[in-house]
Amino acid sequence: MSKDHPISIEEFKKAREQIFPWIQKSSLDYSRTLSDRVGAQVYLKMENEQRTGSFKVRGALNKILSLSAEEKERGLISCSAGNHAQGVAYAARCVKTSTLLVLPENTPIVKEEAVRHYGAEVILHGKVYDESYSHALQLSDESKRVFIHAYRDPKVITGQGSISLEILDRVPELDSIFVPIGGGGLIAGIACAIKQIRPGCRVYGVVSSLAPAMEHLFYKKTYVPEQHFVSGGLADGITVKSPSRDMFDNYISRYVDDIVSVTEDEIASAIVLLLERGKVLAEGAGAVSVAALIKQHKKWDIGKKCGVVISGGNIDLNIIAQVIERGLKSAGRLGRLSVVAKDQPGTLNQITYLLSKMKSNILSVHHERNNPRLAHGMAEIHILIETKGVKHLEQIRLALEKQVYKIEEE
Amino acid sequence: MSKDHPISIEEFKKAREQIFPWIQKSSLDYSRTLSDRVGAQVYLKMENEQRTGSFKVRGALNKILSLSAEEKERGLISCSAGNHAQGVAYAARCVKTSTLLVLPENTPIVKEEAVRHYGAEVILHGKVYDESYSHALQLSDESKRVFIHAYRDPKVITGQGSISLEILDRVPELDSIFVPIGGGGLIAGIACAIKQIRPGCRVYGVVSSLAPAMEHLFYKKTYVPEQHFVSGGLADGITVKSPSRDMFDNYISRYVDDIVSVTEDEIASAIVLLLERGKVLAEGAGAVSVAALIKQHKKWDIGKKCGVVISGGNIDLNIIAQVIERGLKSAGRLGRLSVVAKDQPGTLNQITYLLSKMKSNILSVHHERNNPRLAHGMAEIHILIETKGVKHLEQIRLALEKQVYKIEEE
Repeated sequence: MSKDHPISIEEFKKAREQIFPWIQKSSLDYSRTLSDRVGAQVYLKMENEQRTGSFKVRGALNKILSLSAEEKERGLISCSAGNHAQGVAYAARCVKTSTLLVLPENTPIVKEEAVRHYGAEVILHGKVYDESYSHALQLSDESKRVFIHAYRDPKVITGQGSISLEILDRVPELDSIFVPIGGGGLIAGIACAIKQIRPGCRVYGVVSSLAPAMEHLFYKKTYVPEQHFVSGGLADGITVKSPSRDMFDNYISRYVDDIVSVTEDEIASAIVLLLERGKVLAEGAGAVSVAALIKQHKKWDIGKKCGVVISGGNIDLNIIAQVIERGLKSAGRLGRLSVVAKDQPGTLNQITYLLSKMKSNILSVHHERNNPRLAHGMAEIHILIETKGVKHLEQIRLALEKQVYKIEEE
Repeated sequence: MSKDHPISIEEFKKAREQIFPWIQKSSLDYSRTLSDRVGAQVYLKMENEQRTGSFKVRGALNKILSLSAEEKERGLISCSAGNHAQGVAYAARCVKTSTLLVLPENTPIVKEEAVRHYGAEVILHGKVYDESYSHALQLSDESKRVFIHAYRDPKVITGQGSISLEILDRVPELDSIFVPIGGGGLIAGIACAIKQIRPGCRVYGVVSSLAPAMEHLFYKKTYVPEQHFVSGGLADGITVKSPSRDMFDNYISRYVDDIVSVTEDEIASAIVLLLERGKVLAEGAGAVSVAALIKQHKKWDIGKKCGVVISGGNIDLNIIAQVIERGLKSAGRLGRLSVVAKDQPGTLNQITYLLSKMKSNILSVHHERNNPRLAHGMAEIHILIETKGVKHLEQIRLALEKQVYKIEEE
């Protein structure tokens, strides 16, 4: 590794000092549950506690505080569907600079309101992020406002890297750290700082399996400029269309030890684990690092002390219910059964008696009769049950199959 | 106030020292959101982070650590539908004592599993708590196991009071504190300790409006030995059938400055606020103190520095979805509309066009045609929408009413 790093440790220290008055020094929580599970001391860096609910405010602040008076005078502009918008809006308010945010038209109301709450002007433009981005660049040209990029900017990367200094202050003998990768600014900053202070600390990156291009680039070194997905999924904050070649060449290829992708089910389970055991709320993109730790701790060398960055907590409350259901289902604690049986008195009673005997709690029952694939006189009963785990669910399924016609797990 | 307190400050200090190795020193978090909202510095004591997910472990540990070797040899027994069971099971494991827990038959699987996880023996007995309780007392008599009461025990109360010492260490100038009241052990311990160290600090108690007997007792001084409710509601952990006359006479009447009851909607909003803004998960009984602070901060003297005890975080994940919906609805951010309109092509399109124009996001649509109160040819469309708040919801309702027959808010 060459000695001249793209960002020096002095710059990271300066950033930390510069942004300090405006940010929350987030907790570093020892997680008993995860430590027991993976056999190492696991520390969670809770950036979900950060101002605006995510780490993004660090980079935005460091960038904006580094601007000249003339640049600040011209005002700022940026574009984001999520946390970066709030980070920029908050940072601009701290520095008392006018700022304009271009958000995609389908941005959830609550996120739009949050940005306005910090005093930023908002334009809703574009069906997808790329359209909003082009529009923001064009407005930046026309208005001379300074464009604040979400990650492709050394000042932004330096701000995110301040997280490393806070973690190493508390746990100087850190052996490994798990970090989400979206654009790559967070892992670039964290890795570049940590490898200068503690070169032996392994840095592991995590991407969503819906947008794994950075993982492919890392392994195959082939560059896929555009990946296609219908939805960003649970970790939409890190589901990026185009992986940045620059970020890979300058930081990720140089400082990151390995990368893994995690599935929607793995992310949901991680969110549920943090909520149920840790009593804390993480967004999908913030929980991927926990999902990766659980998935990879036997395959990767995590050492004795392992850091996990929970990058944010801005999850739409309306989707928490779905996440919980997916997480519980993936852990076998929730089962959706579809029972096809005779549509006559006593059928449901027979089923509920059996479930009661097997100590499974019924959460909902829904009857369907006019499904064309049902024979006349038959009904399909959809039952949502609570179980003790995968084994219990299987026992229930088998017991039901002995009594009724057909069971499908939904 | 007489000088001889039922529990001396030395006893609280001894309890704190005694249980220290086994408990989590939970965080005391400054809440920016609540501080802004009520105009005082608000500190949240996060007992949802406590081992077993609630404060109960403090009292159970202090009691069990105070037993003689002979008593420990006899083993323990207790009864609880919730957090006390986990507290006793965990404490018994710390002290390596055999323990038997009697739980009501309808105890959620996850709570039963948690108790077993700590190595306790479990008996499911009784349709309601009182039946389980009688059974446990009987078993205690027969087996000579030592019965660990959830609150009517000075050692248990002393353990809960250790919370006060931790809070006052951090914020010595505390002016007021909000504490949930169930049986009364938590507030008894907290109030008795705090009033000895800082007599001017006001102690406010909070009960669920489903079981407000302690509030009535406080105001009217009339004792209602039994209150009736169908369900314990969101704060089932503090919904007790019989308020304890002892707890009132010895502690609450003497040390508590005022008591308020909070409704299910107020509790749901408090849970949602903690989740959305604080990124932390509290159970209903743990969030009542936040609900009371929001409800009473203008009526009560809360001073400059206010403590709020979040007593636990053991909320069943399956009910979080319902809580979120209730909380968002109560804040006007979620609306359930029932639209009665002609059952013909184009009707739904007319409605969705209007909602789209008014920037309201549709979460679900459900048609009903065979409701007997509908005229032939009419359909009832139930729509769940996301809105910016109460005012926005009202605008949408008015706009819809101009176009269709009848709108009902559900």
